[in-house]
Amino acid sequence: MSHVGLSKMTRIEVVTTGADAPAVRELFTTAGAAGYTSLSGVSGLGHGGYHQGRLLFNDQATLELLITVVSDEKVDALLAGLRPLLDESSGVMFVSDTYVSRPEYFQ
Amino acid sequence: MSHVGLSKMTRIEVVTTGADAPAVRELFTTAGAAGYTSLSGVSGLGHGGYHQGRLLFNDQATLELLITVVSDEKVDALLAGLRPLLDESSGVMFVSDTYVSRPEYFQ
Amino acid sequence: MSHVGLSKMTRIEVVTTGADAPAVRELFTTAGAAGYTSLSGVSGLGHGGYHQGRLLFNDQATLELLITVVSDEKVDALLAGLRPLLDESSGVMFVSDTYVSRPEYFQ
Repeated sequence: MSHVGLSKMTRIEVVTTGADAPAVRELFTTAGAAGYTSLSGVSGLGHGGYHQGRLLFNDQATLELLITVVSDEKVDALLAGLRPLLDESSGVMFVSDTYVSRPEYFQ
Repeated sequence: MSHVGLSKMTRIEVVTTGADAPAVRELFTTAGAAGYTSLSGVSGLGHGGYHQGRLLFNDQATLELLITVVSDEKVDALLAGLRPLLDESSGVMFVSDTYVSRPEYFQ
Repeated sequence: MSHVGLSKMTRIEVVTTGADAPAVRELFTTAGAAGYTSLSGVSGLGHGGYHQGRLLFNDQATLELLITVVSDEKVDALLAGLRPLLDESSGVMFVSDTYVSRPEYFQ
């Protein structure tokens, strides 16, 4: 990725139950994320659910996909906060590189 | 991407019609994916639709976005299964790198 | 990412209000994108909203997540068109690498 005017950031996505989503959103904000996007209409079968001997998600459960984008130096703190929350709940997390044109919007 | 405790995986996303979504989900599972996430409320204009001389998706069609995350060694088998399915239907597929904190959940 | 038969492309995602979504979709198409995917059921708190002294998005606002995938040489033109549109509205944009198996579908 090498386009004029793009800055590298980190995108963190969490799939979690509607019940746990507010705690995840609050964690995003307290860890320094300037915003987030929530998607409803999400269902799923838990990654690892069957392998853990318990069904993490079922096809009927209403889930949310929460997306935030933060500057790289905030990632470790955000992940440190998310891990215990996801261990207790049945959420999964994906972390990836992304690029934005206005990094100051995400500070 | 170099954060403590993250493992590289591959994220595979398919946008397909509601009718074809169950076959894609079944393929994910038989190819060794431990789970998936389905998003409804999806519409779209088919990538390549106009260029193929036929409208793959129209704005009214109800589509689904299906996401799975697998370890890298499962990717080739999953793609080999998806290609003929997507050739017959009107789905599109995106493949990207992602990182997870608990790779055992995705095995 | 080095899997047989995959071609590198660029994925551009925009989170914007339902009111601004048609203009973004039209821009995708005029910039040469062969298609797009729209997700509804999206809400969010604006990246940078609080830091700008104004609330870009509020939790009640109905937003859309628009996704398009284009070949790399179309990215700069697409971004050049999107920037003024996003500056006027309250949208955010994420750009990332992705891989597809049928690049001709995205031309």
